[in-house]
Amino acid sequence: MLLSSSSSMDQIQSASSLLRYLDGELWEIKDALREEISKCELFQSSSYELTLDQNRDLTADRLHHILRLPLMKGHLKDQVKEKQKGFIAKSLSITELICSADMATGVKVGVVCALYGGAVSNLGSSEQKEKWYLPVSELEFTGMFAMTERGHGSNVRGILTEARYNPSTQEFIIHTPSKDAQKMYIGNAMKGNVAAVFAQLIINGESRGPHCFIVPIRDQNGVMWPGVSVIDMKHKEGLHGVDNGILIFDHVRIPRENLLSKFGFVAADGRYSSPIPSKQSRFNAMLAALTPTRLCLTVQAMAAMKLGLIIAVRYSHSRRQFGPKDQDEVKIIEHQTQNLRLMPHLAAALALTFTTRYAADLMDDALYHGRDLQSNRSLQALVAGLKAYSTWQNLACLQDCRECTGGMGFMMENRIPSLKCDSDVFVTFEGDNMVMLQVVVRELLTQYTKQMGNNLVMGLLRNWSSSASDSLRTSFLSFTVDKVGDLTFLLKAVRYRERVLQRSLASRLHSKVEKNKEEFFMAWNSCLHHVTTLATAHIHRVTLEQFALAVQECPVGDDRALLNKFCLLHGTSLVYQERGWYLEHNYLTANASRQIRSQLLEFCRLVKDDALKVVADFNIPSCCIQAPIAGVANPRAEWAFYAQPQYPGGTQPQSKL
Amino acid sequence: MLLSSSSSMDQIQSASSLLRYLDGELWEIKDALREEISKCELFQSSSYELTLDQNRDLTADRLHHILRLPLMKGHLKDQVKEKQKGFIAKSLSITELICSADMATGVKVGVVCALYGGAVSNLGSSEQKEKWYLPVSELEFTGMFAMTERGHGSNVRGILTEARYNPSTQEFIIHTPSKDAQKMYIGNAMKGNVAAVFAQLIINGESRGPHCFIVPIRDQNGVMWPGVSVIDMKHKEGLHGVDNGILIFDHVRIPRENLLSKFGFVAADGRYSSPIPSKQSRFNAMLAALTPTRLCLTVQAMAAMKLGLIIAVRYSHSRRQFGPKDQDEVKIIEHQTQNLRLMPHLAAALALTFTTRYAADLMDDALYHGRDLQSNRSLQALVAGLKAYSTWQNLACLQDCRECTGGMGFMMENRIPSLKCDSDVFVTFEGDNMVMLQVVVRELLTQYTKQMGNNLVMGLLRNWSSSASDSLRTSFLSFTVDKVGDLTFLLKAVRYRERVLQRSLASRLHSKVEKNKEEFFMAWNSCLHHVTTLATAHIHRVTLEQFALAVQECPVGDDRALLNKFCLLHGTSLVYQERGWYLEHNYLTANASRQIRSQLLEFCRLVKDDALKVVADFNIPSCCIQAPIAGVANPRAEWAFYAQPQYPGGTQPQSKL
Repeated sequence: MLLSSSSSMDQIQSASSLLRYLDGELWEIKDALREEISKCELFQSSSYELTLDQNRDLTADRLHHILRLPLMKGHLKDQVKEKQKGFIAKSLSITELICSADMATGVKVGVVCALYGGAVSNLGSSEQKEKWYLPVSELEFTGMFAMTERGHGSNVRGILTEARYNPSTQEFIIHTPSKDAQKMYIGNAMKGNVAAVFAQLIINGESRGPHCFIVPIRDQNGVMWPGVSVIDMKHKEGLHGVDNGILIFDHVRIPRENLLSKFGFVAADGRYSSPIPSKQSRFNAMLAALTPTRLCLTVQAMAAMKLGLIIAVRYSHSRRQFGPKDQDEVKIIEHQTQNLRLMPHLAAALALTFTTRYAADLMDDALYHGRDLQSNRSLQALVAGLKAYSTWQNLACLQDCRECTGGMGFMMENRIPSLKCDSDVFVTFEGDNMVMLQVVVRELLTQYTKQMGNNLVMGLLRNWSSSASDSLRTSFLSFTVDKVGDLTFLLKAVRYRERVLQRSLASRLHSKVEKNKEEFFMAWNSCLHHVTTLATAHIHRVTLEQFALAVQECPVGDDRALLNKFCLLHGTSLVYQERGWYLEHNYLTANASRQIRSQLLEFCRLVKDDALKVVADFNIPSCCIQAPIAGVANPRAEWAFYAQPQYPGGTQPQSKL
Repeated sequence: MLLSSSSSMDQIQSASSLLRYLDGELWEIKDALREEISKCELFQSSSYELTLDQNRDLTADRLHHILRLPLMKGHLKDQVKEKQKGFIAKSLSITELICSADMATGVKVGVVCALYGGAVSNLGSSEQKEKWYLPVSELEFTGMFAMTERGHGSNVRGILTEARYNPSTQEFIIHTPSKDAQKMYIGNAMKGNVAAVFAQLIINGESRGPHCFIVPIRDQNGVMWPGVSVIDMKHKEGLHGVDNGILIFDHVRIPRENLLSKFGFVAADGRYSSPIPSKQSRFNAMLAALTPTRLCLTVQAMAAMKLGLIIAVRYSHSRRQFGPKDQDEVKIIEHQTQNLRLMPHLAAALALTFTTRYAADLMDDALYHGRDLQSNRSLQALVAGLKAYSTWQNLACLQDCRECTGGMGFMMENRIPSLKCDSDVFVTFEGDNMVMLQVVVRELLTQYTKQMGNNLVMGLLRNWSSSASDSLRTSFLSFTVDKVGDLTFLLKAVRYRERVLQRSLASRLHSKVEKNKEEFFMAWNSCLHHVTTLATAHIHRVTLEQFALAVQECPVGDDRALLNKFCLLHGTSLVYQERGWYLEHNYLTANASRQIRSQLLEFCRLVKDDALKVVADFNIPSCCIQAPIAGVANPRAEWAFYAQPQYPGGTQPQSKL
């Protein structure tokens, strides 16, 4: 059904087995979307001379085009159903492809469908979903998501916006009581029609905690709803097509029915009821319902990484510079530092591909079985950790791609600059990465404390003794140095690191809080470096494990061998980065540590030619790659064109798009 | 003389002793320029809605305004004199301030004065300087610098542009023989009038190596010189005001007198003469004459770093987020990870301030005494190393500043995004950083080999034995762990690292090239990671030494104490970054390594409040800071305003500008 045209059939027939493995089960949807994007004029590379308004209009047109696609319409209708099967995985596939085409459009789709749509479909009743979200799929209006306030970016629990119930008119009065309560950075604020606004519900002067309300912002003609005002935040480093603004509410009256009522309901007479009695748990449940959207950030970052890598790897295989005396210059990918800079990012992009798929499947499974996401500690830790790791990894990757392509990488026509600028905000929005890492550890420690029977001291002691043998077993003494290249060694190393960091953090916190009676925030803050280190170790471990599993499960021998090399590289790179820590803990000998370094250099050299196949098998349409230095001609910048390098072996798998 | 107005007098009277120490001996020139910039309408923050052409026009206006200043005119006239005293230091002071005001203007001034001007004044005769450079100070025309070619960015020796001498007309025929020979990324290409073009001089079919020629590009009315064509490269990640283009020469005829003749002269009949017989040494001398301009990049990067730090430090001291239960939220600078991310950059900015001053003084001294810069190996290594270290350090710093200011740091009005985008290219232009690091090591090894009497083997052995005791002396065994906080310990550590890396590299290269007869390029390439590591260790060591000296020489006790804390932080941060290496070499015990980490956290906490004073004493005018989150109001973005935090102690040293 999705494969209507013959050209997409062609493409599928020519797809390599690795391409198909990387695409995963949803390859048909992806192929259909690839074709839609490739044939749509709106997604061809646009001028860099657009004004802010023109950029926003173009992005709005792209958004509408995407929402109008039958495949997207169907998907949005699925969103409001209970027990959707594989909804998250499908959403992520769609998000990644749209972001490959244009990051701003991807973010706008995210605002309208994942954030606004997520709020309505997760926090609303069936009638509310029908009224406030289904019309989006018919382009009747678009929504925005208003949680962040000036005073509280990352600390959402402290939001100040008020929603007072007035029983006489059966209305809520939405109000911004202070400057700090202004809703800030709101995407779609200059174009959207309604907002899902988080505010403190107040009934008879009593606060019931944060709830989500549908507030009309402007009608189809742009006329503002009484009492609502908006400030345009205008120019940003990137995402120029996304209209961010500040929303201010001056006693805005909305009907009682506009409170999204799944976790809290107000009767006409003002009686409040909720399936969750505790204010704290109720808010957690609301936030948890929104966690799937956090995973979107990870695929958005992956889309940018993959594009950067395609461009940098291809150019590094065509551009020549320096070389042996009286001989041709060598391809710059041959320079040791060049492949050392690029190959670990390529390995990380693969690791993220498999880890994100794993997280999506876990989440889909939980949603399908109606399980509570909030109490799934390891899933919460994984999603928060993935968000932080992938978005930082993306920035590091794009920066290396930019530098490894020299002056060409600084030119807008070669796409890398806008990818950098557009995705830079990912590290601080939708949960600042530093906060995300703290979420990871909060989840890990809660899980840990529960395992230990809620008694941290006893738990710690019991845990130490039960794992003393394990600590010995994994110590460096039991390894001969020739084993550092084994995946088993690498996996044990990253697991050991996480375990030790977790145990020592729990013990430090315990002695600060329980023994020395330090205030919790102060104690936590004095361990913040330890906390973020543990969170990183956790997510490193999961990515390596998931990559290793994906290698195991890969059905084609050649692909498996290729992926295995990248998996070893990923593990080596993770251990190399932290060799100081491993040496401090006598987990690596000085010799083993040196060997890890040689191994890293050697793996990077080994995979540099395979890299061409991998980036081809990311299967990103030419119209999304755009960069002339990656072999995509552009009449506007003929001077930047470098023909695509030939793949070793000569079986150049050309995408039809 | 420079202090004409009363407001600058006021400012000077209120200047703190630290401010004066950081400004250095040239504070009067700097103050004069600060005042000029502050009172000039052109340098007030401009719209983000400008088109490319409008941006370029504004930058041209700013360039002309700067060139018209009496202080600048005088400086340019000094440039063509022999034996200028303190010319480099003064150039760097001027460059840093212009870059603080606007990076694109700073780069354009650099192209016209340092690159084009440097070429003419260093490679030309007195008549040529008078004819081709003095008119620039009268705004009669501007120049550009055409060295880089499409085929050879970093590998300049291989340039392909030809300059054939035609004795019958006494002309050179400048020609672009192939696509790879096109002059690329040329700044001022769309607006400049003449170019200093590097081309292979060919006389009677014989090549004399690269020389520099003055080639007219377009007249004052924009009419192109016959045979010259130019392609506009248009949009870049940043530096939108700099017009980069591609120059192509189709048998362009220029008079014989247009060969800059200091290092090579062609008589009317085609006889060639040069004070330097070897082609290779001649080209090296030409390049060496241009090394002062490389130091400009370092101060450009410093200007960006300091701006980023002012903004991030001030905001971190006013913004509050999270905190102990039932108490006010804390300033975000109190978050351990926040001060851990920002403070080491502030320490590095101070280290760079003193190290750049040292390099400038060395260079001024050499130039004043007419000494050859090229043979000054340690100076060449220092300048190349500083370029790479400072420009990377700047990007890392700005990225942390951007992330530490959250969503606000992503908004253009808060200045950090454009600083990032403008200075991103510094790491690859004017010598790619990876190439710069190789230059450092080439210079170090040449020096080393010379010291050892040109016999690498004997040298290595002799050196090993002579320093065996030293190696023992500096090993960890002789330190008790309570000393890792001493500056002596930190200095010894960075020196030890450089020495060991140098020795081991020399030994590896020797065994590859001499024993195993590997081709040199291939051997070098297989050691490239080692090479870049050594280069970084070298420049780390120099910055710590210069910082330590500057602390010693600081005349005021309080300032000395404050600087000393930052110096210790800088050293601790350098050793912490490389603790893996120190552990591998048993230079640090596991315990000492852990102590280095605690020390790093502790120093960052200790200096976080001093940071406010330091950034104030960078003494950057408000009109250059621009950011509302740093307390500089902007009617265009009132929503972003945060009042400046108060300095502890209450003696807020307000700049008048």
